[in-house]
Amino acid sequence: MLFHSKDLQNLEDRYRRNLINSLHSAKSVCLVGTANRQGHSNLAIFSQMFHIGANPPLIGLLVRPDSVDRHTLKNIRETERYSIQHIKESYFREAHQTSARYPENVSEFEAVGLNEIYLSDFPAPFVEKADLKIGLKLNSTQKLEVNGTVLVIGEIVMIEVDSRAVSMDGYIDPEIIGSVAGGGLDGYYSLTKLARLSYAKPNEPLKEILE
Amino acid sequence: MLFHSKDLQNLEDRYRRNLINSLHSAKSVCLVGTANRQGHSNLAIFSQMFHIGANPPLIGLLVRPDSVDRHTLKNIRETERYSIQHIKESYFREAHQTSARYPENVSEFEAVGLNEIYLSDFPAPFVEKADLKIGLKLNSTQKLEVNGTVLVIGEIVMIEVDSRAVSMDGYIDPEIIGSVAGGGLDGYYSLTKLARLSYAKPNEPLKEILE
Repeated sequence: MLFHSKDLQNLEDRYRRNLINSLHSAKSVCLVGTANRQGHSNLAIFSQMFHIGANPPLIGLLVRPDSVDRHTLKNIRETERYSIQHIKESYFREAHQTSARYPENVSEFEAVGLNEIYLSDFPAPFVEKADLKIGLKLNSTQKLEVNGTVLVIGEIVMIEVDSRAVSMDGYIDPEIIGSVAGGGLDGYYSLTKLARLSYAKPNEPLKEILE
Repeated sequence: MLFHSKDLQNLEDRYRRNLINSLHSAKSVCLVGTANRQGHSNLAIFSQMFHIGANPPLIGLLVRPDSVDRHTLKNIRETERYSIQHIKESYFREAHQTSARYPENVSEFEAVGLNEIYLSDFPAPFVEKADLKIGLKLNSTQKLEVNGTVLVIGEIVMIEVDSRAVSMDGYIDPEIIGSVAGGGLDGYYSLTKLARLSYAKPNEPLKEILE
Protein backbone atom coordinates (compact mmCIF):
# COMPACT_ATOMS: atom_id res chain seq x y z
CA MET A 1 0.00 0.00 0.00
CA LEU A 2 1.28 3.43 -0.90
CA PHE A 3 0.17 6.68 0.75
CA HIS A 4 1.28 10.14 -0.29
CA SER A 5 0.69 13.38 1.67
CA LYS A 6 -2.70 13.96 0.06
CA ASP A 7 -3.87 10.40 0.74
CA LEU A 8 -2.90 10.83 4.39
CA GLN A 9 -4.89 14.07 4.64
CA ASN A 10 -7.93 12.37 3.17
CA LEU A 11 -7.91 9.34 5.46
CA GLU A 12 -10.65 8.92 8.01
CA ASP A 13 -9.37 10.30 11.37
CA ARG A 14 -9.26 7.04 13.27
CA TYR A 15 -7.57 5.19 10.41
CA ARG A 16 -4.90 7.89 10.14
CA ARG A 17 -4.34 7.92 13.90
CA ASN A 18 -3.84 4.17 13.96
CA LEU A 19 -1.63 4.15 10.88
CA ILE A 20 0.66 6.98 11.96
CA ASN A 21 0.93 5.62 15.49
CA SER A 22 1.91 2.16 14.21
CA LEU A 23 4.90 3.29 12.18
CA HIS A 24 7.21 2.82 15.17
CA SER A 25 7.05 -0.99 15.28
CA ALA A 26 7.76 -1.06 19.01
CA LYS A 27 7.10 1.62 21.55
CA SER A 28 8.65 2.01 25.00
CA VAL A 29 5.41 1.81 26.93
CA CYS A 30 5.69 2.61 30.61
CA LEU A 31 3.69 3.70 33.62
CA VAL A 32 4.30 7.11 35.17
CA GLY A 33 3.46 7.57 38.85
CA THR A 34 2.99 10.97 40.46
CA ALA A 35 1.40 12.55 43.51
CA ASN A 36 0.18 16.09 43.99
CA ARG A 37 1.22 18.26 46.96
CA GLN A 38 -1.56 16.76 49.06
CA GLY A 39 -0.16 13.29 48.38
CA HIS A 40 -3.01 12.23 46.10
CA SER A 41 -1.57 9.71 43.65
CA ASN A 42 -1.93 9.30 39.90
CA LEU A 43 -0.82 6.62 37.46
CA ALA A 44 -0.76 7.04 33.66
CA ILE A 45 0.43 4.98 30.74
CA PHE A 46 2.86 6.61 28.34
CA SER A 47 3.80 5.01 25.08
CA GLN A 48 7.14 6.70 24.57
CA MET A 49 9.97 7.24 26.96
CA PHE A 50 13.28 7.98 25.33
CA HIS A 51 16.91 8.16 26.18
CA ILE A 52 18.43 11.65 26.21
CA GLY A 53 21.75 11.00 27.90
CA ALA A 54 23.61 8.60 30.19
CA ASN A 55 25.74 11.10 32.11
CA PRO A 56 23.87 12.87 33.56
CA PRO A 57 21.24 10.13 33.18
CA LEU A 58 18.26 11.74 31.45
CA ILE A 59 14.94 10.39 30.21
CA GLY A 60 12.39 12.22 28.04
CA LEU A 61 8.62 11.88 27.92
CA LEU A 62 6.24 13.59 25.51
CA VAL A 63 2.99 14.92 26.93
CA ARG A 64 0.13 16.23 24.83
CA PRO A 65 -1.44 19.11 26.74
CA ASP A 66 -4.95 18.00 25.81
CA SER A 67 -4.54 14.38 26.84
CA VAL A 68 -5.42 12.46 29.98
CA ASP A 69 -1.78 12.79 30.93
CA ARG A 70 -2.51 16.35 31.98
CA HIS A 71 -2.85 15.33 35.68
CA THR A 72 0.57 13.76 35.39
CA LEU A 73 2.11 16.93 33.97
CA LYS A 74 0.43 19.06 36.64
CA ASN A 75 1.77 16.81 39.41
CA ILE A 76 5.26 16.70 37.92
CA ARG A 77 5.33 20.50 37.84
CA GLU A 78 4.06 20.70 41.42
CA THR A 79 6.42 18.22 43.04
CA GLU A 80 9.21 17.91 40.46
CA ARG A 81 9.35 14.16 41.18
CA TYR A 82 7.85 11.21 39.32
CA SER A 83 8.35 7.52 38.81
CA ILE A 84 8.62 5.49 35.62
CA GLN A 85 8.22 1.73 35.55
CA HIS A 86 8.13 -0.90 32.88
CA ILE A 87 4.94 -2.81 32.08
CA LYS A 88 4.95 -6.57 32.53
CA GLU A 89 2.92 -9.13 30.66
CA SER A 90 1.14 -9.88 33.95
CA TYR A 91 -0.40 -6.40 34.18
CA PHE A 92 -0.54 -4.85 30.71
CA ARG A 93 -4.35 -4.78 30.84
CA GLU A 94 -4.33 -2.81 34.09
CA ALA A 95 -1.69 -0.52 32.58
CA HIS A 96 -3.87 0.12 29.53
CA GLN A 97 -6.89 0.79 31.76
CA THR A 98 -5.06 3.77 33.37
CA SER A 99 -5.70 5.63 30.10
CA ALA A 100 -9.42 5.93 30.95
CA ARG A 101 -10.48 9.47 31.84
CA TYR A 102 -10.91 9.12 35.59
CA PRO A 103 -11.86 12.21 37.61
CA GLU A 104 -8.94 13.95 39.29
CA ASN A 105 -9.89 12.69 42.77
CA VAL A 106 -9.67 9.05 41.68
CA SER A 107 -6.29 7.32 41.96
CA GLU A 108 -5.67 5.10 38.97
CA PHE A 109 -3.59 2.82 41.21
CA GLU A 110 -6.77 1.94 43.05
CA ALA A 111 -9.12 2.13 40.08
CA VAL A 112 -7.18 -0.40 38.00
CA GLY A 113 -5.93 -2.52 40.90
CA LEU A 114 -2.20 -1.89 40.89
CA ASN A 115 -0.79 -1.48 44.37
CA GLU A 116 1.25 1.65 45.03
CA ILE A 117 4.39 1.71 47.11
CA TYR A 118 6.77 4.46 48.28
CA LEU A 119 10.52 3.79 48.37
CA SER A 120 13.09 5.46 50.63
CA ASP A 121 12.07 9.10 50.99
CA PHE A 122 11.11 9.49 47.31
CA PRO A 123 7.83 11.44 47.21
CA ALA A 124 6.25 9.85 44.10
CA PRO A 125 4.54 6.45 44.19
CA PHE A 126 5.76 3.34 42.36
CA VAL A 127 3.87 0.32 41.07
CA GLU A 128 4.68 -2.30 43.69
CA LYS A 129 4.95 -5.27 41.37
CA ALA A 130 7.14 -3.61 38.73
CA ASP A 131 10.59 -5.22 38.56
CA LEU A 132 12.10 -2.07 37.10
CA LYS A 133 11.35 1.18 38.91
CA ILE A 134 12.92 4.54 38.13
CA GLY A 135 12.70 7.65 40.29
CA LEU A 136 13.14 10.96 38.47
CA LYS A 137 13.62 14.59 39.31
CA LEU A 138 12.26 17.12 36.81
CA ASN A 139 15.10 18.76 34.90
CA SER A 140 13.14 20.91 32.46
CA THR A 141 10.16 21.07 30.16
CA GLN A 142 10.33 22.29 26.59
CA LYS A 143 7.40 23.00 24.30
CA LEU A 144 7.55 21.72 20.73
CA GLU A 145 6.41 24.69 18.71
CA VAL A 146 5.16 22.45 15.92
CA ASN A 147 2.07 21.26 17.81
CA GLY A 148 2.24 22.29 21.47
CA THR A 149 3.46 18.89 22.71
CA VAL A 150 5.51 19.22 25.89
CA LEU A 151 8.82 17.43 26.21
CA VAL A 152 9.43 16.57 29.87
CA ILE A 153 13.07 15.86 30.70
CA GLY A 154 13.90 14.15 33.97
CA GLU A 155 17.11 13.20 35.69
CA ILE A 156 17.24 9.70 37.11
CA VAL A 157 17.84 9.81 40.85
CA MET A 158 16.98 6.20 41.66
CA ILE A 159 16.69 2.80 39.99
CA GLU A 160 15.39 -0.40 41.52
CA VAL A 161 15.71 -3.44 39.29
CA ASP A 162 15.47 -7.20 39.70
CA SER A 163 19.14 -8.24 39.77
CA ARG A 164 18.45 -11.44 37.79
CA ALA A 165 17.85 -9.29 34.70
CA VAL A 166 21.08 -7.27 34.97
CA SER A 167 24.17 -8.51 33.12
CA MET A 168 27.73 -8.06 34.32
CA ASP A 169 28.08 -5.08 31.98
CA GLY A 170 24.95 -3.27 33.16
CA TYR A 171 22.59 -4.42 30.39
CA ILE A 172 19.03 -5.09 31.58
CA ASP A 173 17.30 -7.81 29.56
CA PRO A 174 13.63 -6.89 29.04
CA GLU A 175 12.76 -10.48 28.17
CA ILE A 176 14.00 -11.71 31.55
CA ILE A 177 11.93 -9.16 33.48
CA GLY A 178 8.95 -9.81 31.20
CA SER A 179 8.58 -6.27 29.85
CA VAL A 180 6.14 -5.64 27.04
CA ALA A 181 6.48 -3.33 24.07
CA GLY A 182 3.66 -1.21 22.68
CA GLY A 183 2.36 -1.22 19.12
CA GLY A 184 0.29 1.64 17.75
CA LEU A 185 -2.24 3.05 20.20
CA ASP A 186 -3.49 -0.16 21.75
CA GLY A 187 -1.25 -3.14 20.93
CA TYR A 188 1.00 -5.01 23.37
CA TYR A 189 3.83 -7.39 22.50
CA SER A 190 6.13 -9.71 24.40
CA LEU A 191 9.82 -9.69 23.55
CA THR A 192 12.10 -12.57 22.58
CA LYS A 193 15.82 -11.92 22.37
CA LEU A 194 17.47 -12.45 19.00
CA ALA A 195 20.96 -11.35 20.04
CA ARG A 196 23.15 -8.68 21.52
CA LEU A 197 25.73 -7.58 18.96
CA SER A 198 29.26 -6.31 19.49
CA TYR A 199 30.33 -2.71 18.87
CA ALA A 200 30.40 -2.33 15.08
CA LYS A 201 33.64 -1.46 13.28
CA PRO A 202 34.24 -1.13 9.52
CA ASN A 203 35.44 -4.39 7.93
CA GLU A 204 35.15 -6.40 11.11
CA PRO A 205 32.51 -9.13 11.53
CA LEU A 206 30.01 -8.64 14.35
CA LYS A 207 30.09 -11.03 17.27
CA GLU A 208 27.26 -11.97 19.58
CA ILE A 209 27.61 -10.78 23.15
CA LEU A 210 26.97 -13.84 25.28
CA GLU A 211 26.07 -13.48 28.94
CA MET B 1 19.51 -3.94 42.97
CA LEU B 2 19.13 -0.38 44.10
CA PHE B 3 21.03 2.59 42.66
CA HIS B 4 20.81 6.15 43.94
CA SER B 5 22.21 9.26 42.18
CA LYS B 6 25.62 8.85 43.81
CA ASP B 7 25.86 5.17 42.87
CA LEU B 8 25.07 6.09 39.26
CA GLN B 9 27.81 8.71 39.21
CA ASN B 10 30.32 6.21 40.55
CA LEU B 11 29.56 3.46 38.05
CA GLU B 12 32.13 2.52 35.46
CA ASP B 13 31.27 4.40 32.22
CA ARG B 14 30.37 1.41 30.10
CA TYR B 15 28.23 -0.14 32.85
CA ARG B 16 26.33 3.12 33.33
CA ARG B 17 25.82 3.54 29.59
CA ASN B 18 24.39 0.05 29.27
CA LEU B 19 22.23 0.36 32.36
CA ILE B 20 20.71 3.76 31.50
CA ASN B 21 20.16 2.75 27.88
CA SER B 22 18.33 -0.43 28.93
CA LEU B 23 15.70 1.26 31.06
CA HIS B 24 13.37 1.58 28.08
CA SER B 25 12.58 -2.11 27.70
CA ALA B 26 11.91 -1.77 23.98
CA LYS B 27 13.24 0.84 21.63
CA SER B 28 11.87 1.83 18.22
CA VAL B 29 14.96 0.96 16.25
CA CYS B 30 14.91 2.04 12.63
CA LEU B 31 17.16 2.81 9.69
CA VAL B 32 17.42 6.35 8.38
CA GLY B 33 18.40 6.83 4.73
CA THR B 34 19.71 10.11 3.33
CA ALA B 35 21.67 11.45 0.41
CA ASN B 36 23.74 14.60 0.15
CA ARG B 37 23.31 17.16 -2.66
CA GLN B 38 25.65 15.16 -4.88
CA GLY B 39 23.43 12.10 -4.43
CA HIS B 40 25.90 10.21 -2.25
CA SER B 41 23.83 7.97 0.03
CA ASN B 42 24.05 7.23 3.74
CA LEU B 43 22.28 4.76 6.02
CA ALA B 44 22.29 4.92 9.82
CA ILE B 45 20.58 3.04 12.62
CA PHE B 46 18.63 5.07 15.15
CA SER B 47 17.29 3.53 18.29
CA GLN B 48 14.49 5.96 18.96
CA MET B 49 11.91 7.35 16.63
CA PHE B 50 8.87 8.78 18.32
CA HIS B 51 5.39 9.92 17.52
CA ILE B 52 4.80 13.67 17.73
CA GLY B 53 1.43 14.01 16.03
CA ALA B 54 -0.95 12.29 13.61
CA ASN B 55 -2.36 15.37 11.87
CA PRO B 56 -0.10 16.71 10.51
CA PRO B 57 1.77 13.38 10.70
CA LEU B 58 5.05 14.07 12.50
CA ILE B 59 7.91 11.86 13.63
CA GLY B 60 10.80 12.84 15.89
CA LEU B 61 14.37 11.56 15.96
CA LEU B 62 17.08 12.44 18.46
CA VAL B 63 20.59 13.01 17.13
CA ARG B 64 23.64 13.42 19.28
CA PRO B 65 25.91 15.94 17.56
CA ASP B 66 29.03 13.94 18.38
CA SER B 67 27.74 10.61 17.11
CA VAL B 68 28.15 8.74 13.84
CA ASP B 69 24.71 10.02 12.95
CA ARG B 70 26.32 13.35 12.12
CA HIS B 71 26.41 12.53 8.38
CA THR B 72 22.69 11.85 8.58
CA LEU B 73 21.99 15.20 10.22
CA LYS B 74 24.17 17.02 7.69
CA ASN B 75 22.34 15.38 4.78
CA ILE B 76 18.92 16.05 6.29
CA ARG B 77 19.81 19.72 6.63
CA GLU B 78 21.13 19.83 3.06
CA THR B 79 18.23 18.14 1.29
CA GLU B 80 15.43 18.37 3.86
CA ARG B 81 14.36 14.85 2.90
CA TYR B 82 15.05 11.49 4.53
CA SER B 83 13.64 8.00 4.80
CA ILE B 84 12.84 5.90 7.85
CA GLN B 85 12.28 2.18 7.66
CA HIS B 86 11.69 -0.58 10.15
CA ILE B 87 14.30 -3.27 10.79
CA LYS B 88 13.36 -6.87 10.09
CA GLU B 89 14.67 -9.97 11.77
CA SER B 90 16.23 -10.93 8.43
CA TYR B 91 18.59 -7.94 8.40
CA PHE B 92 19.08 -6.70 11.99
CA ARG B 93 22.80 -7.58 11.83
CA GLU B 94 23.29 -5.46 8.71
CA ALA B 95 21.31 -2.68 10.39
CA HIS B 96 23.56 -2.82 13.46
CA GLN B 97 26.65 -2.77 11.25
CA THR B 98 25.65 0.67 9.87
CA SER B 99 26.71 2.10 13.25
CA ALA B 100 30.39 1.50 12.39
CA ARG B 101 32.32 4.71 11.73
CA TYR B 102 32.68 4.52 7.96
CA PRO B 103 34.39 7.39 6.13
CA GLU B 104 32.01 9.93 4.61
CA ASN B 105 32.64 8.70 1.05
CA VAL B 106 31.50 5.17 1.88
CA SER B 107 27.80 4.38 1.51
CA GLU B 108 26.61 2.18 4.37
CA PHE B 109 24.06 0.66 1.98
CA GLU B 110 26.93 -0.87 0.07
CA ALA B 111 29.22 -1.47 3.03
CA VAL B 112 26.69 -3.57 4.95
CA GLY B 113 24.99 -5.10 1.93
CA LEU B 114 21.52 -3.57 2.00
CA ASN B 115 20.31 -2.61 -1.44
CA GLU B 116 19.10 0.98 -1.85
CA ILE B 117 16.09 1.98 -3.89
CA TYR B 118 14.50 5.28 -4.89
CA LEU B 119 10.69 5.59 -4.97
CA SER B 120 8.65 8.01 -7.10
CA ASP B 121 10.55 11.28 -7.20
CA PHE B 122 11.54 11.18 -3.53
CA PRO B 123 15.20 12.22 -3.31
CA ALA B 124 16.30 10.09 -0.34
CA PRO B 125 17.10 6.38 -0.67
CA PHE B 126 15.13 3.57 0.95
CA VAL B 127 16.20 0.08 2.02
CA GLU B 128 14.77 -2.07 -0.75
CA LYS B 129 13.75 -5.04 1.36
CA ALA B 130 12.03 -3.06 4.12
CA ASP B 131 8.27 -3.75 4.22
CA LEU B 132 7.59 -0.43 5.90
CA LYS B 133 9.16 2.64 4.30
CA ILE B 134 8.47 6.22 5.32
CA GLY B 135 9.48 9.32 3.36
CA LEU B 136 9.87 12.51 5.42
CA LYS B 137 10.33 16.19 4.82
CA LEU B 138 12.23 18.13 7.46
CA ASN B 139 9.88 20.29 9.51
CA SER B 140 12.29 21.71 12.08
CA THR B 141 15.20 20.97 14.36
CA GLN B 142 15.31 21.95 18.00
CA LYS B 143 18.30 21.76 20.32
CA LEU B 144 17.80 20.31 23.79
CA GLU B 145 19.64 22.76 26.01
CA VAL B 146 20.27 20.11 28.62
CA ASN B 147 22.96 18.28 26.62
CA GLY B 148 23.10 19.57 23.05
CA THR B 149 21.08 16.69 21.59
CA VAL B 150 19.20 17.73 18.46
CA LEU B 151 15.55 16.85 18.04
CA VAL B 152 14.78 16.42 14.35
CA ILE B 153 11.09 16.71 13.50
CA GLY B 154 9.88 15.47 10.12
CA GLU B 155 6.55 15.48 8.38
CA ILE B 156 5.56 12.22 6.72
CA VAL B 157 5.04 12.73 3.01
CA MET B 158 4.98 9.09 1.94
CA ILE B 159 4.40 5.61 3.38
CA GLU B 160 4.86 2.29 1.63
CA VAL B 161 3.77 -0.71 3.65
CA ASP B 162 3.07 -4.38 2.98
CA SER B 163 -0.74 -4.46 2.88
CA ARG B 164 -0.89 -7.84 4.63
CA ALA B 165 0.21 -6.13 7.86
CA VAL B 166 -2.41 -3.35 7.77
CA SER B 167 -5.73 -3.90 9.55
CA MET B 168 -9.06 -2.49 8.42
CA ASP B 169 -8.67 0.32 10.97
CA GLY B 170 -5.17 1.36 9.87
CA TYR B 171 -3.20 -0.52 12.53
CA ILE B 172 0.09 -1.98 11.27
CA ASP B 173 1.07 -5.18 13.09
CA PRO B 174 4.85 -5.24 13.63
CA GLU B 175 4.76 -8.99 14.26
CA ILE B 176 3.29 -9.64 10.81
CA ILE B 177 5.94 -7.57 9.04
CA GLY B 178 8.66 -9.09 11.24
CA SER B 179 9.90 -5.85 12.82
CA VAL B 180 12.39 -6.05 15.63
CA ALA B 181 12.62 -3.92 18.77
CA GLY B 182 15.86 -2.68 20.28
CA GLY B 183 17.10 -3.26 23.81
CA GLY B 184 19.80 -1.11 25.37
CA LEU B 185 22.62 -0.22 23.00
CA ASP B 186 23.03 -3.53 21.23
CA GLY B 187 20.12 -5.90 21.86
CA TYR B 188 17.51 -6.97 19.32
CA TYR B 189 14.16 -8.63 20.04
CA SER B 190 11.37 -10.15 18.01
CA LEU B 191 7.79 -9.26 18.88
CA THR B 192 4.85 -11.54 19.68
CA LYS B 193 1.41 -10.01 19.97
CA LEU B 194 -0.35 -10.34 23.31
CA ALA B 195 -3.45 -8.32 22.38
CA ARG B 196 -4.88 -5.09 21.10
CA LEU B 197 -7.12 -3.57 23.74
CA SER B 198 -10.23 -1.42 23.33
CA TYR B 199 -10.35 2.29 24.20
CA ALA B 200 -10.37 2.42 28.01
CA LYS B 201 -13.30 3.94 29.89
CA PRO B 202 -13.84 4.15 33.65
CA ASN B 203 -15.85 1.21 35.02
CA GLU B 204 -16.02 -0.61 31.73
CA PRO B 205 -14.14 -3.86 31.09
CA LEU B 206 -11.57 -3.84 28.29
CA LYS B 207 -12.21 -5.93 25.22
CA GLU B 208 -9.70 -7.39 22.84
CA ILE B 209 -9.70 -5.91 19.36
CA LEU B 210 -9.81 -8.88 17.03
CA GLU B 211 -8.82 -8.53 13.40
